[in-house]
Amino acid sequence: MTAETIWSSIAETLRAEIAQGVRAPGARLPTEAQLSKRFGVNRHTVRRALAHLSQEGLLHSRRGVGVFVASRPAEYALGPKVRFHRNISAAGRFPKRHTTLIETRNPTEAEAEALKISTSGRVIATEGISLSDGVPIALFASAFPEDRLPGLADALSELSSVTEALARAGVPDYTRRTTRITAVTADPAQAALLQISAGTALILGVSLSVDPAGRPVEFGTSHFVGERVTLTLDHA
Amino acid sequence: MTAETIWSSIAETLRAEIAQGVRAPGARLPTEAQLSKRFGVNRHTVRRALAHLSQEGLLHSRRGVGVFVASRPAEYALGPKVRFHRNISAAGRFPKRHTTLIETRNPTEAEAEALKISTSGRVIATEGISLSDGVPIALFASAFPEDRLPGLADALSELSSVTEALARAGVPDYTRRTTRITAVTADPAQAALLQISAGTALILGVSLSVDPAGRPVEFGTSHFVGERVTLTLDHA
Repeated sequence: MTAETIWSSIAETLRAEIAQGVRAPGARLPTEAQLSKRFGVNRHTVRRALAHLSQEGLLHSRRGVGVFVASRPAEYALGPKVRFHRNISAAGRFPKRHTTLIETRNPTEAEAEALKISTSGRVIATEGISLSDGVPIALFASAFPEDRLPGLADALSELSSVTEALARAGVPDYTRRTTRITAVTADPAQAALLQISAGTALILGVSLSVDPAGRPVEFGTSHFVGERVTLTLDHA
Repeated sequence: MTAETIWSSIAETLRAEIAQGVRAPGARLPTEAQLSKRFGVNRHTVRRALAHLSQEGLLHSRRGVGVFVASRPAEYALGPKVRFHRNISAAGRFPKRHTTLIETRNPTEAEAEALKISTSGRVIATEGISLSDGVPIALFASAFPEDRLPGLADALSELSSVTEALARAGVPDYTRRTTRITAVTADPAQAALLQISAGTALILGVSLSVDPAGRPVEFGTSHFVGERVTLTLDHA
């Protein structure tokens, strides 16, 4: 066997273990010393195999910590019935929303215009972090028109699901009307919350949802971590 | 008048000139010295006004070059009938596609899977830059299945519109089936082509289009400059 056939056969073995889920996304690989021993090769050969799998995007190294199986990006379906918990669950992951702020205040101009209320009106504003399998995937910020949604602030503080909170506030169903998407880079504060480096690419999504009568009920902003999320659209 | 009323009234005057189109997106503002003279104030006051408008996103400075009126992002509607030329024209802008590559080759694995052809089949691959009002807004790369589209390579080299080239190759109509969206940062090569800095956030869109019989005809990848493009989705 040539050196190349040896490292590429090791890479092939590890690739198969990852594909079969024996090594799960986010799992740490054995050390180079352990892999050397397992395959009966020197560390240089192990490193070649690991470098190759890193290039393919299957592994990523964290300096001083180890080598990890890369997470596949969570697929997040956009459409008239976007629901965070259902979307993440459908991808076989565990969804969680950690709300860091609930307050009642005047709307910004953008919020007032989108929600069709006066800037002297009141919105319930929320902020927080969305997680998938415990990994932060997005920062969210939403504004809800207080007048149309009695009791929503309390409901949001008790329930982790916006859908359930809206139902308790008298809106049993709602629909995504529009989404606007662009890309920005993470500032240091966003990066710290999302556990990424500043300058990492974020998908910025701005959405408007309406009740069955077409009245706006939520104006939302999400910053998704690009390398952790793919938004999917089925136009059919 | 207090210092604040003075600079904010200057900012208000400039804001109105921008809103009315007297100062067009991309236009350079007069120098600080010229603005000082015009408004009869010192440069410090002019700088306060300009800083305020920059914070609002109406202006951006290029070090050593000057201060410019920011371009509003081009709105780019996604849906089953996405057409580049119509989209950009609808935004009141002048669309142009500059094709830098047309070649026939074997498909990559991703292309073969999306287009439902064999990896030993052939695709017509194109690459280029999309411009709006002369400003680069995206890099595009597409793969078309050669077997299903006789004469397409010639048509693409003669016509700037993909829609017209497909029509000549026997596909009078086509539909966007899916779009997948994430965010990445521009590498130096992309940055040079798009006239932006490396590390700028790009929207990465991957799309599949089909003919009326549902057969895939185009697998496309676009890297849109985040600060120049907003993708819009109407879910209604």
